[in-house]
Amino acid sequence: MATVDLNSDLGEGFGAYVCGDDAAMLAIVSSANIACGFHAGDPDVMAATFRTAKAAGVSAGAHPGYADLQGFGRRRIPLTSGEVETLVAYQVGAAIGMAALAGHRISHVKAHGALANVAAADRSVADAVVRAVKAVDPSLAFLAIACSEQVAAGEAAGLRTVSEIYADRGYAEDGQLAARGTPGALVTDPEEAAERTLRMIGDGAILTLSGRRLPVRIESVCVHGDNPHAVAAARLLRARLTAAGLTIAPFAR
Amino acid sequence: MATVDLNSDLGEGFGAYVCGDDAAMLAIVSSANIACGFHAGDPDVMAATFRTAKAAGVSAGAHPGYADLQGFGRRRIPLTSGEVETLVAYQVGAAIGMAALAGHRISHVKAHGALANVAAADRSVADAVVRAVKAVDPSLAFLAIACSEQVAAGEAAGLRTVSEIYADRGYAEDGQLAARGTPGALVTDPEEAAERTLRMIGDGAILTLSGRRLPVRIESVCVHGDNPHAVAAARLLRARLTAAGLTIAPFAR
Amino acid sequence: MATVDLNSDLGEGFGAYVCGDDAAMLAIVSSANIACGFHAGDPDVMAATFRTAKAAGVSAGAHPGYADLQGFGRRRIPLTSGEVETLVAYQVGAAIGMAALAGHRISHVKAHGALANVAAADRSVADAVVRAVKAVDPSLAFLAIACSEQVAAGEAAGLRTVSEIYADRGYAEDGQLAARGTPGALVTDPEEAAERTLRMIGDGAILTLSGRRLPVRIESVCVHGDNPHAVAAARLLRARLTAAGLTIAPFAR
Amino acid sequence: MATVDLNSDLGEGFGAYVCGDDAAMLAIVSSANIACGFHAGDPDVMAATFRTAKAAGVSAGAHPGYADLQGFGRRRIPLTSGEVETLVAYQVGAAIGMAALAGHRISHVKAHGALANVAAADRSVADAVVRAVKAVDPSLAFLAIACSEQVAAGEAAGLRTVSEIYADRGYAEDGQLAARGTPGALVTDPEEAAERTLRMIGDGAILTLSGRRLPVRIESVCVHGDNPHAVAAARLLRARLTAAGLTIAPFAR
Repeated sequence: MATVDLNSDLGEGFGAYVCGDDAAMLAIVSSANIACGFHAGDPDVMAATFRTAKAAGVSAGAHPGYADLQGFGRRRIPLTSGEVETLVAYQVGAAIGMAALAGHRISHVKAHGALANVAAADRSVADAVVRAVKAVDPSLAFLAIACSEQVAAGEAAGLRTVSEIYADRGYAEDGQLAARGTPGALVTDPEEAAERTLRMIGDGAILTLSGRRLPVRIESVCVHGDNPHAVAAARLLRARLTAAGLTIAPFAR
Repeated sequence: MATVDLNSDLGEGFGAYVCGDDAAMLAIVSSANIACGFHAGDPDVMAATFRTAKAAGVSAGAHPGYADLQGFGRRRIPLTSGEVETLVAYQVGAAIGMAALAGHRISHVKAHGALANVAAADRSVADAVVRAVKAVDPSLAFLAIACSEQVAAGEAAGLRTVSEIYADRGYAEDGQLAARGTPGALVTDPEEAAERTLRMIGDGAILTLSGRRLPVRIESVCVHGDNPHAVAAARLLRARLTAAGLTIAPFAR
Repeated sequence: MATVDLNSDLGEGFGAYVCGDDAAMLAIVSSANIACGFHAGDPDVMAATFRTAKAAGVSAGAHPGYADLQGFGRRRIPLTSGEVETLVAYQVGAAIGMAALAGHRISHVKAHGALANVAAADRSVADAVVRAVKAVDPSLAFLAIACSEQVAAGEAAGLRTVSEIYADRGYAEDGQLAARGTPGALVTDPEEAAERTLRMIGDGAILTLSGRRLPVRIESVCVHGDNPHAVAAARLLRARLTAAGLTIAPFAR
Repeated sequence: MATVDLNSDLGEGFGAYVCGDDAAMLAIVSSANIACGFHAGDPDVMAATFRTAKAAGVSAGAHPGYADLQGFGRRRIPLTSGEVETLVAYQVGAAIGMAALAGHRISHVKAHGALANVAAADRSVADAVVRAVKAVDPSLAFLAIACSEQVAAGEAAGLRTVSEIYADRGYAEDGQLAARGTPGALVTDPEEAAERTLRMIGDGAILTLSGRRLPVRIESVCVHGDNPHAVAAARLLRARLTAAGLTIAPFAR
């Protein structure tokens, strides 16, 4: 019986600010990527999120990003490789501490936003992220954008590297996410998104905009929960995957 | 042969800002309390400090403080017990991550500035600090102000709790640091400070302003390194302790 | 024909975080207190809020608070009087700059959260706030909690000082807001809040929990907009005041 | 009798962190560019710096930079033009407030670090900086890197635009600062730096590495004070300029 993981970015509030419906998403996903206080999240939000993830039986990961709360980690802050290493090691360590306080543990690391995008395209940045993860805890899994430099870096370093696809995004011919604005870059119909996801998982391949199939071992699907439509789409995706006989479970054991 | 630890607060720069002469102090002390990015320090400063501590053979600890870079952690930020727990767990976790990146490890935790002072006098705050340390790693030692609520909280929780004295400070009749401004609160002559420290270690007791002796197991002496005079005084203290037959070594093994 | 001002705290988002329905509130109030980036708000949020306030014909003010984004300015940060002066002068100046960029101007200053509460009870803090406002621009009005030390400080300094009441709060016998938790501290029924407000304006007096009337020149009423119920209550209050023949208009001309 | 301004970046400490010898520099320069709290400085440091500048009879300016305390404003944060406008307007406004609190006033604005470098090369960024300055106070002078897009933007907007040269830097053939690392990029001998500066002022032209002269109206010379050597070099430069008959005075009246 095939198994697939559903992951989502959670714990993205800060202080009095709320972001997304974490409780709803924790009933849908099997893995939570929890913000670490640099682009979102604070120690109190983190502790609460790790606690609710634990209670929901959801696997938790650290979700480090650039130190850019105002930009939500979406700005490409120019850092040296050494600065990327310290940025990531700090946040992964903090997540380990917060998970422990909450009675949970982290199983994986996934880069956030601009850091993820830069590390997907630039091997030296991906290597820096991976060095930090491996130094802090080599048993952590590395949740990586499929077909990206992240995967190459994680595998070269010997980390358990997990490829994820996006349910609601189109893919360019090189297997990377099609740029927003490109026709087909966003899959807005939840049924179509679910159908595409099932097809990619079934084929073991990314489906590009032109219809090409790029073989890849898909172990996780990323879903969003930052608005009610997104939550409903994620819930529908889970239902369709389950109906097709797939078991939703964390990749990290 | 008696052994005593010398500890100092290090890694207190931030970005381009330098604070103190860490290299000089690492040749004097046996334990370094390394700032964790909230009241001082940043991921790059932390990594560099852990690396130099490792190279110097100096034991490292996390030195969490209030989130108050402008106030250098010296302002008493009113937090709930739960907020103190998350504040400390986050920073201890971050320090674990940074130490790992630097090839070192943390052996202890010591609270900084206003957090330390509040936790010395208020058992509920001390308990919150201790709960965080214990949750993140119960094998960590807790470096505590002698005779304070910190000691009571650490011992009650079963943490390896280490009492420290200050070489250059006078003590009130309850064993707490005499308030700055009180006659005798500051011991400005390094020879006198060394002599007093030797006497307290020899007696196994804190010496109060009135001359009373309060028995306590002294395992560490805190020295400062934030100006050239302080570094010279710390160096002299080490020489006097060594000349008296004491071995300077970390408490945490 | 009597006139009264309705004021509300706006521009309290930060980066991607949204807080309250500013557009709805700007159709209700005559004065907006705009967060200045320390407890909420950032330069982009501020510019957008000044622009929409200008477009809505709403008078704008600076709303400085403690430097405490995580605590939303609700923690009492212990500052010296000099630090309160610089804290407020910085934020008022920043608001002047942002208003100018947006083609608007600030007419008043109102302290936020814990800073407001401390300045309501502690004359030395109120004096520090007032000194900062007066130094930056002595023509600014000072929007103050009725019957508080803020009013005394503002009037003593010769600032145009405007007393505000809260529509949805009960008042203790000294004219201060009854502590939350006290029976009657919160007026949850919008009709009752409107009725009480009309009575206080008509009487020119604060109505205490025991029914006493404390005469005070009421020039503004503070309403909240941080949730849909609050917006509806504010809208109802405006309708009731208007129906009673009051003109809603800014105090600051 | 010819007049020239000497300017320096001051007020670059933060909280307990000290940066440079502001008191020494205020006895040397005629204009101070004061950090505004984003890349350096805080409200207390700013107030103190404006006060000492006022006491020293030194003209003061706002010195806005990217929001990047850890990077000291030297990282190129990718911002939209609108974000640059709000970034600058906020900081210039804050400086106006702080100057007023200190009994001083600001006469000019100079961009800091990476923001200055980006605005020197990218006209759209220079335009955004200039729009912000002009919106906040069109009577402010704009202190610009000679021959750069900053000058073009400032003049096009009708701001009083002042060209500055650097005493200790070599110039590329396009009149821009030669990249560090290029032979001749740094003029380390203070006497040579003074001699070059006198020659450029006398010629009314920038002297490039190849010896070409690019005519430009030089009204200010930037000197650094971040270490004892820099202070001594600035003092020597002032002495040489004065000995050559030049009057050192602010450009902004």
